[in-house]
Order: sequence, then C-alpha cells, then structure tokens
Amino acid sequence: MLEKIDLSKKADKETFKQVMETEGGRLAGLQRECKAAGIPVMIVFEGMGAAGKGVQINRLIQALDPRGFSVFATNSSNEEERMRPFLWRYWTKIPAKGRIAIFDRSWYSIVQRDRFDCPDENLDLEGAFQDILSFEKQLSDDGTVIIKLFLHISKEEQKKRFKKLDNSKETSWRVNKQDWKRNKEYDSYLKINEEMLEKTDTEYAPWTIIESTDKDYGAMKILTTVADRLALALENKRAARKESEKKQNQASAKRFQNGVLSGIDLSKSLTKEQYKKELDGLQKRLENLHNELYRLRIPVVLGFEGWDAGGKGGAIKRLTSHLDPRGYQVNPTASPNDIEKVHHYLWRFWNNMPKAGHIAIFDRTWYGRVMVERIEGFCSEAEWKRAYQEINEMESHMANYGAVVLKFWLHIDKDEQERRFKERMENPAKQWKITDEDWRNREKWDLYEQAVDEMLVRTSTTYAPWIVVEGNSKYYARVKVLRTVVEALEAKIKEVKKQQKHERFKRQEETDR
Amino acid sequence: MLEKIDLSKKADKETFKQVMETEGGRLAGLQRECKAAGIPVMIVFEGMGAAGKGVQINRLIQALDPRGFSVFATNSSNEEERMRPFLWRYWTKIPAKGRIAIFDRSWYSIVQRDRFDCPDENLDLEGAFQDILSFEKQLSDDGTVIIKLFLHISKEEQKKRFKKLDNSKETSWRVNKQDWKRNKEYDSYLKINEEMLEKTDTEYAPWTIIESTDKDYGAMKILTTVADRLALALENKRAARKESEKKQNQASAKRFQNGVLSGIDLSKSLTKEQYKKELDGLQKRLENLHNELYRLRIPVVLGFEGWDAGGKGGAIKRLTSHLDPRGYQVNPTASPNDIEKVHHYLWRFWNNMPKAGHIAIFDRTWYGRVMVERIEGFCSEAEWKRAYQEINEMESHMANYGAVVLKFWLHIDKDEQERRFKERMENPAKQWKITDEDWRNREKWDLYEQAVDEMLVRTSTTYAPWIVVEGNSKYYARVKVLRTVVEALEAKIKEVKKQQKHERFKRQEETDR
Repeated sequence: MLEKIDLSKKADKETFKQVMETEGGRLAGLQRECKAAGIPVMIVFEGMGAAGKGVQINRLIQALDPRGFSVFATNSSNEEERMRPFLWRYWTKIPAKGRIAIFDRSWYSIVQRDRFDCPDENLDLEGAFQDILSFEKQLSDDGTVIIKLFLHISKEEQKKRFKKLDNSKETSWRVNKQDWKRNKEYDSYLKINEEMLEKTDTEYAPWTIIESTDKDYGAMKILTTVADRLALALENKRAARKESEKKQNQASAKRFQNGVLSGIDLSKSLTKEQYKKELDGLQKRLENLHNELYRLRIPVVLGFEGWDAGGKGGAIKRLTSHLDPRGYQVNPTASPNDIEKVHHYLWRFWNNMPKAGHIAIFDRTWYGRVMVERIEGFCSEAEWKRAYQEINEMESHMANYGAVVLKFWLHIDKDEQERRFKERMENPAKQWKITDEDWRNREKWDLYEQAVDEMLVRTSTTYAPWIVVEGNSKYYARVKVLRTVVEALEAKIKEVKKQQKHERFKRQEETDR
Repeated sequence: MLEKIDLSKKADKETFKQVMETEGGRLAGLQRECKAAGIPVMIVFEGMGAAGKGVQINRLIQALDPRGFSVFATNSSNEEERMRPFLWRYWTKIPAKGRIAIFDRSWYSIVQRDRFDCPDENLDLEGAFQDILSFEKQLSDDGTVIIKLFLHISKEEQKKRFKKLDNSKETSWRVNKQDWKRNKEYDSYLKINEEMLEKTDTEYAPWTIIESTDKDYGAMKILTTVADRLALALENKRAARKESEKKQNQASAKRFQNGVLSGIDLSKSLTKEQYKKELDGLQKRLENLHNELYRLRIPVVLGFEGWDAGGKGGAIKRLTSHLDPRGYQVNPTASPNDIEKVHHYLWRFWNNMPKAGHIAIFDRTWYGRVMVERIEGFCSEAEWKRAYQEINEMESHMANYGAVVLKFWLHIDKDEQERRFKERMENPAKQWKITDEDWRNREKWDLYEQAVDEMLVRTSTTYAPWIVVEGNSKYYARVKVLRTVVEALEAKIKEVKKQQKHERFKRQEETDR
C-alpha cells in the first residue's frame, strides 16, 4: 500500500499559514481540555529516513504548552534496557494522566529498522507484533490516546535529501552507511514497513500516513490529525461517562462460578524436625541455583498473595535468607501513591520487573486489581474484568523473554486467621502487623473467596502458574514455597542448558560443513 | 488452571429439578426474543473425552424450539474441506440471524485433539490460534453470541467411564485406542487444553468450564450459562440501538485523506498489433500455468472491482478464454439475496472460495462493503470502518493457506465513462449493460473516489495487493491484468517448488543420518 500513495501533495503558502494558525489554536485548547479530563496521549513518529521527523516534531510542539509534554528520542537500548523485554523501556515512559509523550522513533524499531539493519535470527517476529498489539491495547483500554504517524517519501526524494545532508560539513554526520543501504534497497525496506503497518493498524491505535515530500503539507496534516484525535477522545470520554452512570449495578451476579479453594486440604503439616531438615537442604540448593541463574541470565518473578496473616512475610524471609542481596529485590506493594495513581495500574510493577539474572519478589502484587480494587470498587467492573487478560499478557511477556514466573496464594481458613489476629494483638512485638482494616477485610471473607477463586482459575497459566499453599501449618507452607521455587528453577536451568547445547551443536555442525 | 478446578461439585435432585424447570422456561423465552431480535447464536461443546457432551447437548435442546436450532457434529474433515483452510467448513455453517447453531466439537479440534493425536510438524500453531481469534471476533462484532463450554472431568473419572463403556457390547465401539492414550497421558493432554483455553478466552467469546463429574450439576450450569448469555446479548442490543440513534451523523468528515487515484497515468495505451501479440503470448503462458497450479494444489483468488464500464467483463473474458473450465469459476456478485442478507456479509464469499488447485474469479467482490454499502448507507459507519480489517483477515487467511490473492481496480476517468455509457445506449447489443442506476452512481463519483482511495490504501497488503489498472485503453488494461496474473502465478509456483525441494532435501538428510 505504501508504494501506492500519491506523494505529490503540496500546500500553498497561504493555506499553510492559515491552517497552522487555526489548527494550532484549536490544538492548544484541546491540550488544556485533555489535561483537565486526565487523558494521557502518546504520539509516535516513525517513517522513512530523512522524511523530516525532527522538523515535524518541532513544528508540532510549537502549538503545545511546554509544561504538558515530553519528547523521547529512541536511541540504541542501554545496558539496563537490554536486560529486559524490549517493551520495558516504553512501559517506564508512558505518560501520566493529562500529559503528552512524543516519541521520535519508538517500540516499532524492533520490527522495522533493526529488522532490516541487523536481522536477528532468534527474533520471534510474530511474538514481537503480538507484544506491541497488547501493549497498545492495554494503554488504549486505560484511556490513553495513541497517535501513530508514518512520514513517507519516495526513493528519489530520499536520495536527494541524503545527498544534500552529505554535502555539507555540518550535516554529513547525520547520514551513515545504513541510511544509504536503506535507500539503495528502498523497495525491500518499504516492504518491511508495509508489513509493520498492516499488522499494527488497529481501531484503537491507527496509523496515519503523512505525505512528506512537501514539509508544509505534512505539518498541516499532522497538526490536524493530532487535534482531531484529541477532540474525538474528549467526546468519547464524555459519552462513556454518561453510559457508565446508567449501567451501574445493572450487571447480574455470576452463578455457578468455578471453585478452587473449596478443594484445598488444609490439614497438611510438618513436625519441627522435618521442617528444619527440609528447610536447611532446600535453602542450600537455592543458594547454588541463584548463582547459576545469574550466570545464565535467567530473570525470576515471584508473586505472593494470600489471606491477611496467611504467612507471606515468613515464607519470603525463609526464601531469601541464604540469597546474595545483590541478586534479588523484595518489592512490598502498598496502596498506590499519587504518582502511581495517575499511571496505568501495571506501570509500577513494570518498573520493578527483574533484570536478566535477577530475582524480583513481590509481597502483594498486580493482583490487587482483581481483589481489593474489585471488592472495594476502586476500579470499574469493566476494568477488573479486563485485567485478567492484561495480567496474563504481562506475565506471558516476561515468560517469553525467558523468565520464571510463579505466583503463590497462601491459604488459611477463617478460624486460623482469627487465632493469628488475636495472637498478634496480644504480642507487643507483632502489634504493628494488625490494623482495623484487617478486621474489616475479614468481614468480607466470602466476597474475597469468590474473587480469589475467579482469579486463580483465570490467571493460572502454563507459563505462569498459581501455587495454592496449604498454610494452616506454617512449617508446611514455608517448605512448599521453597521446594516449588527450587524445582521450577532447576527445571528452567536444565531447559536453558539443553537449548544452549543444542545451539552449540548446530553452530559446530555449520562450521563442519 | 484446569488441574485446579474443584471437580467435586454436585447437585441434589430437588435443586436440579427446580433449576431445570425454571431455567428451561427462561431459555425458551429468550430463544424467542433472540429470534425476534435477529441475534445469531453459536454454542460450542468441547472438553475431555467421556465428559458427557452428547448427554448435555441433548438436555440443552430439550428446552429449545426445534425449528430454531441445528446441531453439527464435527467429524474428520471430508475431501471438500481438506482442500480449503480449516475454518472454511465452519464459515459455511454459521447461523443465520435468529438461529442457534450447536457444535459437538468444533474449530478447536485442530489446536486440541488433532494436535495430540496426530501432531503435524507443518502446523503453524500460532497462526491457527490467530485465525480462530479473528473468526470469533468477526462474528461477534457482527452480533453473533458465541458460547463456549468446556466439559471437564478428572483422569480417574474418565478411566472409570471408559471402562464402563468398554465393558458393554453396545458401547465398546465408542472407546478407541486414542481415547485410552489420552487417558494415559492425561496430564500432557490437559496441558494442550489449558493452552487452548488460555489463548482463546476473550471478552467477546469467553470459555465457561463445566464441572462434569456430576451430570446434573453440569446440566444446570450449562442451561443457566446459555440463558445468561442470551439475556445479556438482548440487553446489549437494546442499549446499542439507543446509542447509535444518538450518534448518527456526529462523526466529522475526514480531511487530508491519502490519495492513490490522483496519481494514476491514464494515457497509457497499446496499438491493436501490440495487443494481439501480447495477448496471445500471455494466454498461452497462463494455460500452462493453470496445469501446474492444479498439480501443485495452489488456490488462486482474483477479485475485480472498478468504475462502471471500466472494462471488468472484457478483462475477465480475456483471462479465462484459454482456461480449462473445470479448473476455474467466475462468481458474479449482485446485491445480496434474502438468505445472504441474514448472514455475515463475508459468508457468501467464503462459500465461493476456491479449492486447492482452482481459480476463483470474483466480478465485484466483498469490497462492496466499503464502497456501495458505505456510500448508500446499507451498513453502519462502525460496520464499514471495521470491514477493512475483517477483509484483510479473510485474505490473509487464504494467503496463509497458500493462495495467490490479487485484486484489480479497473480505473477510467469520468469522460471516458460518459463516452462508454453513451456508446452502450446507442448499441442495441449492449443496452442491457446500462441502467438508470449506473447514471445515478455516476453522480456520486467524488464520494466513490474518496471511498476507493481509502480502500486501496487500507487493504493493499503484501499478501494480497491491489493492482490499479489504467483502463482508458482497453487493450492496455487487458494485457496488464493478464501479465500481472501470469507473473504472480509464476512467482508462486517457483516459491512452492523451491520449498518442496528444500523439504525433500531435509527428509533425505534425515534418512542419511
């Protein structure tokens, strides 16, 4: 389709001046309205080399209030970024509510420039497209406006521009070998771009192709496109608000839900002697595994959820006590702070995802979305229902990158919880652990049980399973957590080594031929 | 997640009787309402062997008006079906508006049973999942309610049931070797099912897991699930109707659209001598290629669109004149008939998709959705906007199956059209070709041009390109169509042969080791 676009479009000076003025004014007003309405906006500039991305970004921001936007240039990834899935660097840069983030090149590099410049045999291209689609869908579902602009020029025009840049001392550094290669093999590079546009042109994040032979025409079209999209988003937001007011509490309760917790045998236990022996052995094994993980660059994500007083803290303590503190991090999850509240709910967890070779332990997790936020009404019904898939996508993203992802539900019954609550109140050293809120939550036990059952069924996946830990016996629970982690790491390490061996073998074979 | 489900749930006789009666009555009423509202419904039964699909389908249909549903049992595919993409057989069976289609096993076999029973190395598993997702999304967007039930029992329960069946003469034929294999390797089969549920559990077509140890409990849950989903669909339809009445004509016109037609050079032409020579050579090449296509089982889809009197008929005639009529079919596309009107708009085209090795030529196509239906308001704005993606998905589905897909736009200018219209009116042999409607359409030239531009940009893809044919000279146009087809077929044949050679080589290599 790109080769079909009529690139001869031009603007005359008069129209240009007039459109830039009226649309610029309109855009400034819309930016203020979006800020008031708390709408985050992402504007992506992609396109052919020398199509004028820099110039156009500059022209666009002339119309904007500089306190309301940030521009991110996408250079090669740094060390921190290379040790995480490719979208991680963009998750950390998503705009807060009411702000605009402008990207000079973006998450599309991996399926576009990188794919052409340095083809990576191991790249799972379809997987990368899926990751991009789910990234944009999640943000868009959360209310982010995503505007994607593709600046297009012809082979001849590009050649002319490269030559002009090359001929001047000040600008010749801006054209490199790769640029020329992309010009020489323009048709095959165009095909890659074409495929990218095909696969990622969605209703929620459509591409707009900007004919960029004439920069004035391009500038007009960009300004108008951005303004139109913001206007539409504001209109949709107003309509949605009215709609949701009507719909509230129309939904009927769900009957016949699948159960999990009802089948758990809480009588399992260990004696103190068994416990000490097992604990000791497992902790030593884990210590050794930790070194191997680091060497093999395997990231590990461990999430802990469970009833209040279920024993999360104790289990985490036994898990980490023999580990090198430089190789793991425990992330306690409290209620979101003000900064966190104005971002996508997964943003703060993305920020804490482990680097390759490191372990991240989450004491309470992103599952708050489908438990406390669901029950207390901190998010809408549509939001928590959507969250199951969003969470699965995030975890599969980590798993595809090679991470071990495990989630533990520390399960106790209501009587055991009461016993522990009372014990805490009577023990001065533990009193800080118990609050009025804990007692209030306890009254909602049945609601929580329903939510937890649904969560376990919907988000226990082959790549990121839930482990329900029988927790009435703390000894039993701690050992089960440790053993599960140890066995999962051993399996993963075996798998990675086997794969490496296979690759070495393949390389050897190729050399031998 | 499947291994976590508590399968011990039971119904007592009293509750069972009562629920079946009240829910059965409710369901019958909802079926009538859905019929009146024109809502198509698909109910899919999947699950573990001997979980009781047959029994449960039987119980469900007790509550339904038999004139309103059909049950399809999914057996091995027949010859007709094996020569087309795997979803073809289901596209041809989608329910008309107001009807219910019940599937005993379904399009999920390919990613479930088949995957376990006879693993196919060449199966693109991710591709199959994507095809399933887009199939369900398209139907759901069109208003179809998709209810997917997964009947679940444990390994032990399954074994018990197989044994019981095996022990009786009347039923022993129902348990075969594969069934026992699936029981023996229950865990790995469960994992395949688990992955299937994970990848295809969507908001628009969610899975419901039915605990089937106790058949009464299962029946209650199924009846209630189906009734709840129908009630929700009716409610949503009512809400959507109100919403769309409000929104009508709120959308603003799109400015700065990408153009294609404006850049086309219509002065291209051929002399009669050039034409005859080229035509003759190309037709002979095509004749030979047709045999090769057949031998290599390559399906070919050729779509023709263009201005009225643009020369579609003449081009198709020259294309087919040397072809073996058993190997191609020309499908003229008129306004949809009554049967077609109550199905998804792509249904009638799916019905006419070519078998492997055959050529299907469409004189006017599925693109009517984004041209005449858009302009005359025969479908809603949301519908034609969504259609670009739906059409791309259908074409990519064919292309993934190995088809050559080409679309021709026969382009003439307004003056040339007028000349041809007048010629037709004056020539008694051609008068039938021109109607008042043609003159009326001509008045909407600018609207059509805008729609065509958008269509060409949005649906010309790497796997199914649009070819804009400069049509003022009929000679030039016919030769360009023929040449394009010949070259595309030659390229495809070369690709397929290369691939076959590669596979032979690989097999040989494996034998040699």
